[in-house]
Amino acid sequence: MKAHQRKLDIKNGCVDLSHGSGGRAMAQLISGLFHEAFGNEWLARGNDQSAFAVGAGRMVMTTDGYVVSPLFFPGGNIGSLAVHGTVNDIAMAGAKPLYLSASFIIEEGFRFADLRMIAESMGQAAREAGVHIITGDTKVVERGKADGLFISTAGVGVVPDELDLSAEKAEAGDRVLISGTLGDHGVAIMSKRQNLAFETEIVSDSASLNDLVAKMVEVGGHGIRLMRDPTRGGLAATLNEIAEQSDLGFRLQEEAIPVKPGVAAACELLGLDPLHVANEGKLVAIVSPEAAEAVLAAMRAHPLGRDAADIGEAVADDHHFVQMATSFGGGRIVDWLSGEQLPRIC
Amino acid sequence: MKAHQRKLDIKNGCVDLSHGSGGRAMAQLISGLFHEAFGNEWLARGNDQSAFAVGAGRMVMTTDGYVVSPLFFPGGNIGSLAVHGTVNDIAMAGAKPLYLSASFIIEEGFRFADLRMIAESMGQAAREAGVHIITGDTKVVERGKADGLFISTAGVGVVPDELDLSAEKAEAGDRVLISGTLGDHGVAIMSKRQNLAFETEIVSDSASLNDLVAKMVEVGGHGIRLMRDPTRGGLAATLNEIAEQSDLGFRLQEEAIPVKPGVAAACELLGLDPLHVANEGKLVAIVSPEAAEAVLAAMRAHPLGRDAADIGEAVADDHHFVQMATSFGGGRIVDWLSGEQLPRIC
Repeated sequence: MKAHQRKLDIKNGCVDLSHGSGGRAMAQLISGLFHEAFGNEWLARGNDQSAFAVGAGRMVMTTDGYVVSPLFFPGGNIGSLAVHGTVNDIAMAGAKPLYLSASFIIEEGFRFADLRMIAESMGQAAREAGVHIITGDTKVVERGKADGLFISTAGVGVVPDELDLSAEKAEAGDRVLISGTLGDHGVAIMSKRQNLAFETEIVSDSASLNDLVAKMVEVGGHGIRLMRDPTRGGLAATLNEIAEQSDLGFRLQEEAIPVKPGVAAACELLGLDPLHVANEGKLVAIVSPEAAEAVLAAMRAHPLGRDAADIGEAVADDHHFVQMATSFGGGRIVDWLSGEQLPRIC
Repeated sequence: MKAHQRKLDIKNGCVDLSHGSGGRAMAQLISGLFHEAFGNEWLARGNDQSAFAVGAGRMVMTTDGYVVSPLFFPGGNIGSLAVHGTVNDIAMAGAKPLYLSASFIIEEGFRFADLRMIAESMGQAAREAGVHIITGDTKVVERGKADGLFISTAGVGVVPDELDLSAEKAEAGDRVLISGTLGDHGVAIMSKRQNLAFETEIVSDSASLNDLVAKMVEVGGHGIRLMRDPTRGGLAATLNEIAEQSDLGFRLQEEAIPVKPGVAAACELLGLDPLHVANEGKLVAIVSPEAAEAVLAAMRAHPLGRDAADIGEAVADDHHFVQMATSFGGGRIVDWLSGEQLPRIC
């Protein structure tokens, strides 16, 4: 096809405004870089939308914008993050993620080489999660009008028959399970930004949780009331949100909450509470007491749930407080993040 | 709910970094501004994803990022544009648009009052098109790291049974129909940017075309080979793209192509070719000669197709040229936009 004959100079070239203008240069960028990285039958058709077959049932849809800074961080980059985050938002409904869309907003002067690395990470993350990036869009803005690259992904998935996870289903006595250590993603970003050096590098936990969720649903069924991924605002925001939506409170055991020593040390240094720090490969599940043990066992049997823990329970509480019994025998209220700010974490 | 008790000062307030940090401020912004404007049962549930029921069949998915500058322009703003554009990408598959997602990337300091106006335009555009904005995301970046506001919308729709529009279905002899005058959107943006004053203001054609498409499909059925909305790159890019994908060429009649006198005058002044200028409420349809008359009549009977015209035909051409017989009796090749740049038009 004539628009695609000239090759992009990926090694030395940069994105310029012509790559967003709907002309030949844009067609080259899309076919030479994005189609290469995402390669699938849908994109090859070159339509402004992509079609797929569905069976009758329930679907879910979600979207997230990614503005993480820096774009490359220990354990991933904005591309893999953009796939993991949207896959996880679908998975939290107990759904099987199927198809993603990707919208790129690129600052003039962005290096092709970086864009290709990011696109390849997206392609790889999609293949690992068993989803396809079937449609996309590319815009270019002038130098100084963006911060390198922003990506918005949206996704759809199918919900297994009769599964309807919802905060309203939570009851007093339900167990609070988390799938692993808290704070890894946020601390990896912050330590990179602050140029902190620790003996062992702190790596983002960014990962797709759909396979873990499938295993949990298999053994837990309707015993799983709801799941959430504690991203921005951390576990604290997620549990406060669930408390309000379910008209309950939570009582947590600090000792039971897994935090890596390096993350704990970095949090102390940076003045952060691990409960407020973002995670990108963790989930919290509210599970009936009857199902909790089996679900926890299924989580621990999965590579992404090895450090899963039962960290507390839902309680009747008109104030919707999230309370925590501390390691020293005292107690405190775990509130939403309010004054503190951790921007550009995802 | 406690997180939502304090009201946003929409009249005087601005977005700050806390509105993107996953805490209380973000919850307030989302419930106080976006839920107000989009208000529907899905958003009210407060999940990170939204569920809906589907019947067995084919669906389409699409996404677009919107970076238009200025954000407010004659005939619309970035919000209405973000709904129209995504609705249209779905409609071009002959599909019925159903659900949208919206991802907001906001620059610190952006005025709540402007954000509310934009959100309200989105809500209104969605209601007019019969779609629901069922899930969204909000990120805030530091001052100077974005240009006010970027929006990425994604959407899904259902395709009527057995309808499969595709460039490969086009044949030599097919007619090229357009739904109205060309260049209105791009010229409205450019004249606003250049502060051009014309006797009559040039207004963007930004509109949702799904209802027009439904009427066309009703009378045209399989006679409609494919449809596209000629946005970035204009009709020239769209027809060149179709020519390559369908292995055909096109022969157009310049006299038949409707362009408003004000738009033609502005194009001359700005050195633009109306065939390269973006449209946001127009479609081009490649239709079998047998169905063309009925489809054109259906278009003209619709408020958004009053100026519809048959502008030429598909021809066998190994070079995939888009040729045009000019008003002066000559001919020229209509090429992709290449050197010229019209950034930030959508």
